[in-house]
Amino acid sequence: MSETLLVGLGERSYPIHIGPGLLDRPEILRARIPGRQVMIVTNETVAPLYLDRVERALGDLRIARVVLPDGEKYKNLETWNRIMDDLLGHRYARDCTLAALGGGVIGDMAGFAAACYQRGVAFIQLPTSLLAQVDSSVGGKTGINHPLGKNMIGAFHQPRAVVADTDTLDTLPDPELAAGLAEVIKYGLIRDPAFFAWLEANMERLRGRDTQALTHAIERSCRNKAEVVAADEREAGERALLNLGHTFGHAIETGAGYGAWLHGEAVGVGICLAADLSARLGWLDAASVRRIRSLIVAAGLPVAPPAEIDPERFRALMARDKKVLDNRLRLVLLQGIGKALVTADFDHARLDETLATARSAGHGSP
Amino acid sequence: MSETLLVGLGERSYPIHIGPGLLDRPEILRARIPGRQVMIVTNETVAPLYLDRVERALGDLRIARVVLPDGEKYKNLETWNRIMDDLLGHRYARDCTLAALGGGVIGDMAGFAAACYQRGVAFIQLPTSLLAQVDSSVGGKTGINHPLGKNMIGAFHQPRAVVADTDTLDTLPDPELAAGLAEVIKYGLIRDPAFFAWLEANMERLRGRDTQALTHAIERSCRNKAEVVAADEREAGERALLNLGHTFGHAIETGAGYGAWLHGEAVGVGICLAADLSARLGWLDAASVRRIRSLIVAAGLPVAPPAEIDPERFRALMARDKKVLDNRLRLVLLQGIGKALVTADFDHARLDETLATARSAGHGSP
Repeated sequence: MSETLLVGLGERSYPIHIGPGLLDRPEILRARIPGRQVMIVTNETVAPLYLDRVERALGDLRIARVVLPDGEKYKNLETWNRIMDDLLGHRYARDCTLAALGGGVIGDMAGFAAACYQRGVAFIQLPTSLLAQVDSSVGGKTGINHPLGKNMIGAFHQPRAVVADTDTLDTLPDPELAAGLAEVIKYGLIRDPAFFAWLEANMERLRGRDTQALTHAIERSCRNKAEVVAADEREAGERALLNLGHTFGHAIETGAGYGAWLHGEAVGVGICLAADLSARLGWLDAASVRRIRSLIVAAGLPVAPPAEIDPERFRALMARDKKVLDNRLRLVLLQGIGKALVTADFDHARLDETLATARSAGHGSP
Repeated sequence: MSETLLVGLGERSYPIHIGPGLLDRPEILRARIPGRQVMIVTNETVAPLYLDRVERALGDLRIARVVLPDGEKYKNLETWNRIMDDLLGHRYARDCTLAALGGGVIGDMAGFAAACYQRGVAFIQLPTSLLAQVDSSVGGKTGINHPLGKNMIGAFHQPRAVVADTDTLDTLPDPELAAGLAEVIKYGLIRDPAFFAWLEANMERLRGRDTQALTHAIERSCRNKAEVVAADEREAGERALLNLGHTFGHAIETGAGYGAWLHGEAVGVGICLAADLSARLGWLDAASVRRIRSLIVAAGLPVAPPAEIDPERFRALMARDKKVLDNRLRLVLLQGIGKALVTADFDHARLDETLATARSAGHGSP
């Protein structure tokens, strides 16, 4: 009933389990927990839905839980430090394991707590949102936001296992399902054109929560992500392509205030802006831009940034991106559907046009 | 005029430079700085003494500085976050380098900031205390304190270089020199009996700040540390021996309030307690205990914990140590001078005796 992929990282390799009902299966949840102390990190929305099941499946281990407020605006140092307080308050030792039960925010914060508690303890990812199942739970990027920039404080710290129970998507609100689809579309655009075409043909099934379609999309996304991460764990090269749309998107999230936009919504807009800029640079044909924009719309995602971020502020926010090197802004841009590159070598006047045009398009709320 | 050792960690190997006047030598300071942005992290005591020199030596690089308050009690999340604020305020990019100019507190905090800023940037150690030059600047352990325990939040993050300018010891207060000697003595005890004997013969020269003697002690200490770290970077085995005296010492530091005791002072007491316990267990002869205690006294260090930490509280503080696994306290104990082991397999009644006897000894201020 379930599929298992592997993220190949030598002795730090780990499985991604995908399928229905996995949170009820002790043999899957417990297989990669090294010690006997587990701290489940979750939030107020997810806890009433799934916490009991996970605690039951973990059976006779010593279990503590920390239930955090829900939302991107709580992905900060203060909330993260609550995990540390609880770990120390419970006297959890270096052989403990953190279990991140929730979406991307929970996974990022719990993972970063695991990276730093006693200089590093084990953790497992139990993603309950589509975005977390297809993207953020895989690959070991962990972190928190700073008022001056998204994910600016963090660590690379790989989980021991990812357990994606597809049943949890049943309780996911529509906007969060759409947000996850932005990252799914991303894989098609940067390296898997056949998958992009499949998404064009199956977007209605996905939005209708057809189990088979969703499971396929999650597997294919995770397979793409696992290949990229195995080849370039620390983002020295290809992994940067996974940030398609993210430099634009982070600017929207930071500029609008954390939590006003879902991450995936901002990424959806960012993908449209990256496609628009790529076309203005003469790298991408108009038909491809239309296909991309249509698929983003079909996924139920916005395509224009909020009007209150004017182009000047937008550029200032983008200048803080982690891909900036030597003060040069680097962007992931497209040379076709399935073909992306990272470059600082583009005409910034075209970027100004993209930002000005997008603003006057007049959409811009999630 | 200077000696260079290597910490052998594959592609993350790095040099330790030891000698006089090194902070004035651009070719040494700059050799391992990858980009053009440097953030010097230092404190209010060290900045007036050495900051100008370092800035001059770094010449035409883009330099910012953050000057933190001085002392162990500031080695916390709040102070650490000031470094993050400044890095982001200056828009420093992922190719920036942090330079830790100061003692162990500065090195630990700057290193942990480098570990987490944008998921990891480069850093170099410019240690200005004996303790930092012989121990904390080498090996990649970084971190901050939590009210419930020393160094409980942190990361393994290796520096790109360690530059130990022995001239900086001229400005070091006597108690800090003594504190550094505790860690020097530790190397003799755990793996280098000939060095221990040399220290017995040369302690007066060291306390008199004889340049040649100090340089030898630093080199020999760094050589020992580099060998241990190269063999066991993540403390899966031998590296734990470097914590001789530290479980006792951390309990004293946490119990007395961070900053009341210097780290090295607490470690000095911890070494005496470890020796006492080892003797009570029948593992160490009385003559060795006397030699150890005499050398700690000769270094100008205290040998008894503060009376206000009663044995019960002392044990509770020790139970939070990072070496605790499965709720079992593990200690570094001695089987001879130059021979140590980590074990949870000892009679706890003997530990109680050690703590009770030490307390009634009636010393206990740094």
